[in-house]
Amino acid sequence: MSDQVVLPVVGNGNYHNNNDDHSHSNVLNIYPLSCYYFGSKEAVPFEDETIADRVHRMKSNYDAYGLRTCVQAVLLVELFKHPHLLLLQIRNSILMLPGGRLRPGESDIGGLKRKLSSKLSIDKDGGRPDWEVGECLGMWWRHNFETLLYPYLPPNVKWPKECIKLFLVKLPASQKFIVPKNLKLLAVPLSEIHESQKKYGPIISGIPQLLSKFAVNVVES
Amino acid sequence: MSDQVVLPVVGNGNYHNNNDDHSHSNVLNIYPLSCYYFGSKEAVPFEDETIADRVHRMKSNYDAYGLRTCVQAVLLVELFKHPHLLLLQIRNSILMLPGGRLRPGESDIGGLKRKLSSKLSIDKDGGRPDWEVGECLGMWWRHNFETLLYPYLPPNVKWPKECIKLFLVKLPASQKFIVPKNLKLLAVPLSEIHESQKKYGPIISGIPQLLSKFAVNVVES
Repeated sequence: MSDQVVLPVVGNGNYHNNNDDHSHSNVLNIYPLSCYYFGSKEAVPFEDETIADRVHRMKSNYDAYGLRTCVQAVLLVELFKHPHLLLLQIRNSILMLPGGRLRPGESDIGGLKRKLSSKLSIDKDGGRPDWEVGECLGMWWRHNFETLLYPYLPPNVKWPKECIKLFLVKLPASQKFIVPKNLKLLAVPLSEIHESQKKYGPIISGIPQLLSKFAVNVVES
Repeated sequence: MSDQVVLPVVGNGNYHNNNDDHSHSNVLNIYPLSCYYFGSKEAVPFEDETIADRVHRMKSNYDAYGLRTCVQAVLLVELFKHPHLLLLQIRNSILMLPGGRLRPGESDIGGLKRKLSSKLSIDKDGGRPDWEVGECLGMWWRHNFETLLYPYLPPNVKWPKECIKLFLVKLPASQKFIVPKNLKLLAVPLSEIHESQKKYGPIISGIPQLLSKFAVNVVES
């Protein structure tokens, strides 16, 4: 993991929100990592379970609520003049995009903002940043409870079990990230992620392609 | 290649252009393969050359004109209730997206329309369809003359040698495809292309992911 950068947890700092205009859709402004402040908060509980338990839980949730929808955020910062993707790491192993499961009836954007606040900032209203959720970059489908994820829905699958939606979330010129103590926030270069499916899984390893249409513009502070 | 469908070349048929409104950006209307007419025309010349010859030609073109830009089209039809991508095949081996190299000073969209007309329809004005070139889906960069393609440009690469841009091209409800005799037009299901990098190369095998954000809507004729 030589190219990954573990984000430092530092003391209290100043926080100012300085949103720029990101109106041109094919230009993506990103800011240096040094623009952001990183702190920690209480650990969040995890469902520590076996795969069999997980499948069982997915099945009973499916029976109760139908299709499970997860929303995940693609957040970029600049480091060493190259875009880096923000990933959360659990127990020094599993890497994941910030996000999570929607509550029944919750909107994609509302749910993603809730998940981002619980995993990347102070939860309470007031301290919570106004996340700028942009376009949907891609969707992955789980056809059955134990199967792989695919970026399409074949015609023979009438009742998919899970849909994972990736949204571009545009960071402002400054922001305070407050991460639960049992999670580690990493900044990983796109060049490290591309085609590293074994390490990052199919969803994360495909993100450099999904972002390739953008002209990334590093805004120097 | 069991899942590929070779498009039949048939006799003269009627041709009517019936453009629909594709205004909602996340819904992608596609039409059954049977809506389209396929015919053939004179063979087009190919630069039949060694890799060394190709690199030599790229180098002298780079010295004369700078960065080489290629534009390629992502064209979809419906078959067996699943989206199929249109690919061109040369000499029963190389598979490629319809498109090609821009002339110096030519616009992306103008160049792609010219290339689509020369490879997929009657060249002459009048018989040429008005190709509806949509959004850019992704870009790939060749950092040096003999290197691989990447979906990003690392900071140490100041002078990339080639940029390949993929554009979504929305087909109308009916169209006449006229393909050079030395090319074969194939319709390949997205499920066959996904993760088949060895067979289709990095660009084509990533297209299902690039399209995954769209809700594909099959318009029955």
